[in-house]
Amino acid sequence: MAPTHIEHIGIAVKNLQGSIKYYEDILGLKCYSIEEVKDQKVKTAFFLVGQTKIELLESTDPEGSIGKFIEKRGEGVHHVAFAVTNLPEQLKEVEAKGIQLIDKQPRKGAEGLNIAFLHPKSTHGVLTELCEKA
Amino acid sequence: MAPTHIEHIGIAVKNLQGSIKYYEDILGLKCYSIEEVKDQKVKTAFFLVGQTKIELLESTDPEGSIGKFIEKRGEGVHHVAFAVTNLPEQLKEVEAKGIQLIDKQPRKGAEGLNIAFLHPKSTHGVLTELCEKA
Repeated sequence: MAPTHIEHIGIAVKNLQGSIKYYEDILGLKCYSIEEVKDQKVKTAFFLVGQTKIELLESTDPEGSIGKFIEKRGEGVHHVAFAVTNLPEQLKEVEAKGIQLIDKQPRKGAEGLNIAFLHPKSTHGVLTELCEKA
Repeated sequence: MAPTHIEHIGIAVKNLQGSIKYYEDILGLKCYSIEEVKDQKVKTAFFLVGQTKIELLESTDPEGSIGKFIEKRGEGVHHVAFAVTNLPEQLKEVEAKGIQLIDKQPRKGAEGLNIAFLHPKSTHGVLTELCEKA
């Protein structure tokens, strides 16, 4: 695998509007998209800084993974996403090397990307997403 | 403020060598530097992916901030660093807007950068570093 860049950093927040205000007013970034991803039970907001996006994630259901994350750990970085090419092949390769996959096949994520997660038990504590443009 | 890119993502790990092996063998990144930062009580390893560095942080003292972080939360993302220009001015500006600073003045960080941290209580849960080339 040779990721080209950090595609995004996913950050769990309690209140999307309040956090958007922080990223805009304090860090000077510009929210360019708000999108609900129903099957992930989140509402997301995106900012671009250099090559990398900040993806804010607000839970829309306390039983969803972001809802549970916030309940357990509070707000903070939820995952790191690496941009790769040939995602299905990369998944096979890392699984063969003993990495535990959350998604054995790519699925659709926010912004229409093909995505798959690696389990943080296999990645030294960082919930890791691999993603590829469709 | 208008950060140009994500300068690095700081990741707390229990064992630097084991984590270097993961980032090299699984993610295909190349560790280009290992550096001890004594006043932060850490040993660091750096990888470059696109514009952004991955900075692995192994505690050298359980009483240091990384030692305490690992004790409390386990391995995982510790901080996110934004590259800015005119760091002293940015610190004044965000403090005037009510942000709690950990460092009121820039100090020296790894790789000789001038750095300062914003308190996660002010930044919606993300320990945030601003940094500038010396």
